[in-house]
Amino acid sequence: MKKILVLTGGGDCPGLNAVIRAIVKRADHEGDVEVYGSIEAYSGVLRAPQEIIRLTNKTVAGIHVKGGTILGTTTKSDPFNFTITKENGEVETIDRSDEMVHMIKEMGFNCVISIGGDGSQRISKALFDKGMPVVGVPKTIDNDLSATDYTFGFQTAVQEATDAVDKLVSTAESHHRVIILEVMGRSAGWIALHSAIAGGAEICLIPEIPYDIEAVKERIESRYNNGRGFVNIVIAEGAKPKDGSITARKSDEAGYQNLRLGGVAYQLTQQLKNVGCKADIREMVLGHLQRGGSPNAFDRVLATQYGVKAMEMALAGDFGKMVTFKNNEISSVSLEAATEAYNNVDPLSYLVHAAKGIGISFGD
Amino acid sequence: MKKILVLTGGGDCPGLNAVIRAIVKRADHEGDVEVYGSIEAYSGVLRAPQEIIRLTNKTVAGIHVKGGTILGTTTKSDPFNFTITKENGEVETIDRSDEMVHMIKEMGFNCVISIGGDGSQRISKALFDKGMPVVGVPKTIDNDLSATDYTFGFQTAVQEATDAVDKLVSTAESHHRVIILEVMGRSAGWIALHSAIAGGAEICLIPEIPYDIEAVKERIESRYNNGRGFVNIVIAEGAKPKDGSITARKSDEAGYQNLRLGGVAYQLTQQLKNVGCKADIREMVLGHLQRGGSPNAFDRVLATQYGVKAMEMALAGDFGKMVTFKNNEISSVSLEAATEAYNNVDPLSYLVHAAKGIGISFGD
Amino acid sequence: MKKILVLTGGGDCPGLNAVIRAIVKRADHEGDVEVYGSIEAYSGVLRAPQEIIRLTNKTVAGIHVKGGTILGTTTKSDPFNFTITKENGEVETIDRSDEMVHMIKEMGFNCVISIGGDGSQRISKALFDKGMPVVGVPKTIDNDLSATDYTFGFQTAVQEATDAVDKLVSTAESHHRVIILEVMGRSAGWIALHSAIAGGAEICLIPEIPYDIEAVKERIESRYNNGRGFVNIVIAEGAKPKDGSITARKSDEAGYQNLRLGGVAYQLTQQLKNVGCKADIREMVLGHLQRGGSPNAFDRVLATQYGVKAMEMALAGDFGKMVTFKNNEISSVSLEAATEAYNNVDPLSYLVHAAKGIGISFGD
Amino acid sequence: MKKILVLTGGGDCPGLNAVIRAIVKRADHEGDVEVYGSIEAYSGVLRAPQEIIRLTNKTVAGIHVKGGTILGTTTKSDPFNFTITKENGEVETIDRSDEMVHMIKEMGFNCVISIGGDGSQRISKALFDKGMPVVGVPKTIDNDLSATDYTFGFQTAVQEATDAVDKLVSTAESHHRVIILEVMGRSAGWIALHSAIAGGAEICLIPEIPYDIEAVKERIESRYNNGRGFVNIVIAEGAKPKDGSITARKSDEAGYQNLRLGGVAYQLTQQLKNVGCKADIREMVLGHLQRGGSPNAFDRVLATQYGVKAMEMALAGDFGKMVTFKNNEISSVSLEAATEAYNNVDPLSYLVHAAKGIGISFGD
Repeated sequence: MKKILVLTGGGDCPGLNAVIRAIVKRADHEGDVEVYGSIEAYSGVLRAPQEIIRLTNKTVAGIHVKGGTILGTTTKSDPFNFTITKENGEVETIDRSDEMVHMIKEMGFNCVISIGGDGSQRISKALFDKGMPVVGVPKTIDNDLSATDYTFGFQTAVQEATDAVDKLVSTAESHHRVIILEVMGRSAGWIALHSAIAGGAEICLIPEIPYDIEAVKERIESRYNNGRGFVNIVIAEGAKPKDGSITARKSDEAGYQNLRLGGVAYQLTQQLKNVGCKADIREMVLGHLQRGGSPNAFDRVLATQYGVKAMEMALAGDFGKMVTFKNNEISSVSLEAATEAYNNVDPLSYLVHAAKGIGISFGD
Repeated sequence: MKKILVLTGGGDCPGLNAVIRAIVKRADHEGDVEVYGSIEAYSGVLRAPQEIIRLTNKTVAGIHVKGGTILGTTTKSDPFNFTITKENGEVETIDRSDEMVHMIKEMGFNCVISIGGDGSQRISKALFDKGMPVVGVPKTIDNDLSATDYTFGFQTAVQEATDAVDKLVSTAESHHRVIILEVMGRSAGWIALHSAIAGGAEICLIPEIPYDIEAVKERIESRYNNGRGFVNIVIAEGAKPKDGSITARKSDEAGYQNLRLGGVAYQLTQQLKNVGCKADIREMVLGHLQRGGSPNAFDRVLATQYGVKAMEMALAGDFGKMVTFKNNEISSVSLEAATEAYNNVDPLSYLVHAAKGIGISFGD
Repeated sequence: MKKILVLTGGGDCPGLNAVIRAIVKRADHEGDVEVYGSIEAYSGVLRAPQEIIRLTNKTVAGIHVKGGTILGTTTKSDPFNFTITKENGEVETIDRSDEMVHMIKEMGFNCVISIGGDGSQRISKALFDKGMPVVGVPKTIDNDLSATDYTFGFQTAVQEATDAVDKLVSTAESHHRVIILEVMGRSAGWIALHSAIAGGAEICLIPEIPYDIEAVKERIESRYNNGRGFVNIVIAEGAKPKDGSITARKSDEAGYQNLRLGGVAYQLTQQLKNVGCKADIREMVLGHLQRGGSPNAFDRVLATQYGVKAMEMALAGDFGKMVTFKNNEISSVSLEAATEAYNNVDPLSYLVHAAKGIGISFGD
Repeated sequence: MKKILVLTGGGDCPGLNAVIRAIVKRADHEGDVEVYGSIEAYSGVLRAPQEIIRLTNKTVAGIHVKGGTILGTTTKSDPFNFTITKENGEVETIDRSDEMVHMIKEMGFNCVISIGGDGSQRISKALFDKGMPVVGVPKTIDNDLSATDYTFGFQTAVQEATDAVDKLVSTAESHHRVIILEVMGRSAGWIALHSAIAGGAEICLIPEIPYDIEAVKERIESRYNNGRGFVNIVIAEGAKPKDGSITARKSDEAGYQNLRLGGVAYQLTQQLKNVGCKADIREMVLGHLQRGGSPNAFDRVLATQYGVKAMEMALAGDFGKMVTFKNNEISSVSLEAATEAYNNVDPLSYLVHAAKGIGISFGD
């Protein structure tokens, strides 16, 4: 009898439950394997046994259609920097990685399948180096890992953003307005790029192509004839002007506090007003709508294959690797290779070329 | 041959195009009637003939599925207070109502069908008193007119808000967060109330029931056991605390500038932090997503009946009235009666009672 | 401590789970009440105790977004005509109604809340007459009960049918085809009527208005110019021609076998060909898609109010009645009155008048 | 000034309008290029000039969100076998290919962009061999061309089928039924395979893996415990049993007439009954819902790239080729290579392996 532990870390993403379901069902198909889940990533292990739960076919029935993760998740469960609140209220971080590796073995797990983003995979790598058997499953809604062509959740987020553009077009047109839609993408502009093309936006601003506010203004004005016209702008949350005037980032606490006061979209409005743009501008921050909700068919199929593959690697003892989807094939890479390169939008790619070809301005 | 003019005023709303289509198709069915549209409400008339367009079956083919309005709309076309920008840049408002009445007659229109909100209906009333034949069609996405049980656009907005709650629940649950969703409703909390019930939110804050921030905090805390739990809050943009600490309103320019910096949802977060709520809180402002997009079936059926009825009143010379939907029947009331009373949520209604019955807190 | 039993009977319908959830949550809000569910309508009682399950807030968490019913349902649980398969394979029906009333009392239930259609309410009435305390909640996706203006599930089914028309229009138009969509409605044409108006169909055939196949053909041909054009037809499964040539009904076993071979839509195609219609015709039977899926916001709000009201009646001892929604208000009627009149489409109603006014033909 | 002609042939497919829009917008971006559309594939050319229309930015504004094709389509416009109805009613096919090539040159078109399926690309190849400059864009909702990894429309059809499975699951579960969903796929089972995985079906029957009806029955029975349980089956319209008992194909006229009487799904029900399956079975044929409706974001992005690439090839004189999407890159192949190999589901592929791994039975 083999025992496999599953956990989900980092921000939630449509498709996590489909991965968990596939892992459990593949184990059931194999027979002689028990699957367990750790609540809130690695935290559950440290709070064992009450936060280690058995996962059966019954537990996972129908969960593939649901957003979120039945195991819960957190961005604060790094065993190398585990946060503890002391009796006097002070917060301290300690290294509990050895304890983690010990407990996994103590509890008799043959492998940990860790579904998570960049940070989670680095932790997995470090625990693997300490002797813990682990298989990784990539999770990044921004699709910014170069080791894999697609990650689940991305197409669902793109669809959500595209639906939003579709809706905003009709109200922008009726009122002759500029509507700015802020979507996810702190360092990679994939969601913005795909949804701008799919939704038919006029302007797309992404981190990889710093924008010139005057060029943005010009594109807006070219759309207005005799005072009429309308413009839809899709902006990634990490987009920045060429002049470096915006440096705050959501990843800094100060930047986050600043940016949430209306967001990047609001800042763009102010910049446009500063350069004399007279259009009637409205902003919309899509935010958590991109994370929630049922994964679309594409993401469910991808997530299911990831889950099956991860379980098969776990059973085969093929540890220290992460599942990938490259050139239309399910495969795997070492955890080291998994996190060494990012997948950013290439300004010279055919996709950006095609976007420009249909008249989308990147403000460059 | 009769000639009827149609126009749409105020904020756009799903279903406007379905009304326009029904008006045109009913005229075609009648025969011997020509329908025209005025671009951007009454402004089009003052810019005639280039902004008066003929509407035929072909013009309106398939438009009932589209959000927005093919005639464009504006909130600045009151002929009694018409805005003019003078050569020196000064803005002036003048009374062009007599000119309006004159032009309608001059162009040979037998009736104007004005689709619009409270403000539009008041203007229609005043023009009717000056001798212009007019029929009104109510438009308020907030469903806040007491003369009619339902207005088109409302159910579509409720569905959009409910879809948002459905999506936010999964992410709130996975991260053990409080997520605040701000929806439309400056003076009437209908959208918030319906979507909170339909989406299964725990807290619903509306203008009609001022909230006690301590009660909101308590409800949140009662959901958290051993540091876990999650809460979804739906807040109408016009919701206010009992203590009167928020007085800014989006309808004031200053209030609007203040509130758009994150919105009412953001202010609620600050209030919760001020009273010691330690939950991890996120905000989402649904904004223009509620206005855009295809009207749902309910709204299309209602809008179609409104359009048919309005055209029949126009043909029958039944002027000075507004179409209504009361007790499941299409009818009409005088323009005077149409705008004299608002339809606010009654805190003692069965709907609020039912919401409380399933455990929703209004913070009162 | 009070004990209430809930059950769902007849065909499933979006919103059943929302009713169940509201019943349970209202009981929790009251305190000192336990709610139980009977699996597969009254069958569960006869198989007690293994098919009587406790329903708590945890059981019903999040179920309002799901179609179907967590209690299961069946159309074969009438205690007055209970079906039994004997050892020799013979099927027999026996009267177990006295046993039913006895068991409900034996198990200590203060009231049974029976959510079901016409047939279920008649059974409830008969059991009530034998002394069983019962409260009814109406369930008919066809919206064909005159005691209530709306039943949950109807608007969801209309939306599903409207979405189908929206999709079929684009393919009909591209190929210059006639596409016939068959929707539910054996005796009442509400779903067909609403979705034909909302989707912009050209022809709507319903049970209440027998059609003349020549008139249908003429309407089709009037849409074709120089060999082009397209037509969308929505037909209720109970629609019939004036000449009485179709008498098979799905409710007869023979009729069902006959009709499922392509359905009513396929028969209409044959009739059209018989009278010389040369158009390229395709059929689509929407079938179970109308029953499945998440209830829309309208139906969730209605279902929630029904559930709350039913529990309040159960607690107040207000037995022998069914919850209703009349003139925009939640109320109740006696079980006797609940089932004595049907709500069919009135061919002289304003809704049919409006449909004709926008050019929809009923083939009459 | 260059002149490019666009046409769409074969069955309609979500994304056709997005391709057309991208072609026109790319031309506008280039400048000095005029784009024209031919109504109903090559038929329009033969009926020139009235069926050759100018396509401008205004013509294509917003069409990317719409299903179908603004140019109309037909499966009967092969210039090599052009159908003519003679005065006496006889139907004759004649070769008008030389006339076609002549007219394209006569009208001054520099290139024809032909968007169509396998048949259309063969016609393009033959016309190219006769001297007509042509660029192909692949269109097959079944995704069955080996020259390209993805064709637009496929993911939208998969999503539609998955939505159907999601809805049918709840009704199947509530009634303990087997529900069979028939989806497109006459020779390739891609839509069935993807939607069965994404929707969580228990059984998937595709043309590439002939099924054993006893194995299907066994899988159904294994799901039923004590008379309860439910099963969702997705079957491609081209699926066939191992024993060869079904040979009728929709592509034969006789087979079509036979199969439309309830479809492949209905035949499966009969087969199951014949081998003694006692489950309560219902069928649903998804049919044209898969073709209609708005393309999803994935398909819009793909279709846009196809359109841009096709126009660039047309401008560059890169004729006799078809646009492709291989290994995540936009590229092209010769028309000869484009149609020589089909893309069928490989029973030994990882996708089928993964489907089996989560417990899906293919009845083999």
